[in-house]
Amino acid sequence: MTQSPIRLLITGGTFDKEYDELQGRLFFKDTHVPEMLRLGRCRLDVAVRTIRMVDSLEMTDADRQAILANCRQAPENRIVVTHGTDTMTAGDQKTIVLTGAMVPYAFGSSDGLFNLGSALSFVQVLPPGVYIAMNGRCFPWDRVRKNTSLGVFEEIPES
Amino acid sequence: MTQSPIRLLITGGTFDKEYDELQGRLFFKDTHVPEMLRLGRCRLDVAVRTIRMVDSLEMTDADRQAILANCRQAPENRIVVTHGTDTMTAGDQKTIVLTGAMVPYAFGSSDGLFNLGSALSFVQVLPPGVYIAMNGRCFPWDRVRKNTSLGVFEEIPES
Amino acid sequence: MTQSPIRLLITGGTFDKEYDELQGRLFFKDTHVPEMLRLGRCRLDVAVRTIRMVDSLEMTDADRQAILANCRQAPENRIVVTHGTDTMTAGDQKTIVLTGAMVPYAFGSSDGLFNLGSALSFVQVLPPGVYIAMNGRCFPWDRVRKNTSLGVFEEIPES
Amino acid sequence: MTQSPIRLLITGGTFDKEYDELQGRLFFKDTHVPEMLRLGRCRLDVAVRTIRMVDSLEMTDADRQAILANCRQAPENRIVVTHGTDTMTAGDQKTIVLTGAMVPYAFGSSDGLFNLGSALSFVQVLPPGVYIAMNGRCFPWDRVRKNTSLGVFEEIPES
Repeated sequence: MTQSPIRLLITGGTFDKEYDELQGRLFFKDTHVPEMLRLGRCRLDVAVRTIRMVDSLEMTDADRQAILANCRQAPENRIVVTHGTDTMTAGDQKTIVLTGAMVPYAFGSSDGLFNLGSALSFVQVLPPGVYIAMNGRCFPWDRVRKNTSLGVFEEIPES
Repeated sequence: MTQSPIRLLITGGTFDKEYDELQGRLFFKDTHVPEMLRLGRCRLDVAVRTIRMVDSLEMTDADRQAILANCRQAPENRIVVTHGTDTMTAGDQKTIVLTGAMVPYAFGSSDGLFNLGSALSFVQVLPPGVYIAMNGRCFPWDRVRKNTSLGVFEEIPES
Repeated sequence: MTQSPIRLLITGGTFDKEYDELQGRLFFKDTHVPEMLRLGRCRLDVAVRTIRMVDSLEMTDADRQAILANCRQAPENRIVVTHGTDTMTAGDQKTIVLTGAMVPYAFGSSDGLFNLGSALSFVQVLPPGVYIAMNGRCFPWDRVRKNTSLGVFEEIPES
Repeated sequence: MTQSPIRLLITGGTFDKEYDELQGRLFFKDTHVPEMLRLGRCRLDVAVRTIRMVDSLEMTDADRQAILANCRQAPENRIVVTHGTDTMTAGDQKTIVLTGAMVPYAFGSSDGLFNLGSALSFVQVLPPGVYIAMNGRCFPWDRVRKNTSLGVFEEIPES
């Protein structure tokens, strides 16, 4: 396991939502990822870049193009995207792992730190391709769907 | 990534220490690992077994033999050990990942959840061997040392 | 400080909001107050009763009447209401302290536990009347307003 | 309730213990009280001063004299002491409330925030005297003892 540098792209999502105490609603301020990397005592060579801070349900095609462009232009070959999109297309010689959270990190009961540890691990050892890391598992991007009634990600059976 | 079953062996360590409010000191009660798996919304096929609840500094050779025996006898080929020992020897056709925490999970600021997500990910994709997963990285068991002044795990350079 | 029994009435509010991970929004399930009393190692003689689980912005006059009726009918003379209403009227020989939270308790960064400790203390020593306990302070119910731009409660100057 | 200024004296105790991840033991660094006041959205006029950072079991008579001198010399008439001593003697025209915690604040499950809210409330309304605020209750200093097997503070019955 040589220590290849990793690019970590922030796009928002549940992961980074915070509670706005004046309005009584969830909103985005800054990303919690640097704090989470400190908490995880992470010693990887990670370059963090915030591209967007949006809810994935409000993500536009322009947002997705921006994420894709960032993946392509990054000098790193190993990329983690916090919260991504199922419309993303593969196609380059990079290992890209998307992850997210079911509950905001700022809530004590979030799965975010577990998922970040998971995504940063998978990205180091998997061959080039685009993957989704959730629930401790890792799926090829085109073989996974979110079961919205159970709140878990599951494999799409081969047809 | 087929979903091979994973054995998760608990041996205690910083990971599982709790605060004893009557005595004002740290102690062991039950493991927090099942709660952490729930928190991480983990959907892997994981069988948890508590072997010991000891501080690694007080681990005896008998303890280490018990861990080794549990690894060998487990029907699973993929094994995560929470907190382990640097004296463990490899030798079978299994993927074994040891992990731990610098701060008890019961403390809000623990790296435990990050490390558990990391270890459960590495164990799914690495070839047979014994590894240590800490700080987001994964090291072969005989190529790592704990830098006790920095509190991080680092690779032993090849001689 | 004799240990008079205290009635603790739950009406919902920010205090008790939780994160719905399937819908990605805040909602009410059960109250966190019993857990908070355990966390505070509270040894007061407290009887907890949930009247409503509503957002105070959606509280109707019927809700307010129900809270008032509960205050009146309670055998206890010392009453704490988690999240209340500025339209409540005084009038009986009881000490009633309303409190709430700016951030849900389920968020790690909530002021709820501080406010609960504060309200349970004020209710034991203040003379009969209706009060609001927030920000470590305690105000007569008709001398306080919420400064919604600062997110703090402040005294209304006497005219 | 006029807003008299409050002096908050820090002496260490369980309240402020932290986990030393290099040594694997509890220790003192800085006090968490300012962070706790922020978390509680406290808007009282509080002047915080750290006198000592010691475990109460290791507190000497000199330490206790220093706390007493600080209480006497403080310009404020309302004083909260985080973690104190049962050997403290009353004698001045001030309201002094001692409090502490059964579990360090840095642990998620601490009673510290509840106790701080409680102590800051009692100190505003009680007549001059020395009190202990724990478990949601408030006791005159000479009428309380710590039940070390239950981990709660209880009143000493009048003889």
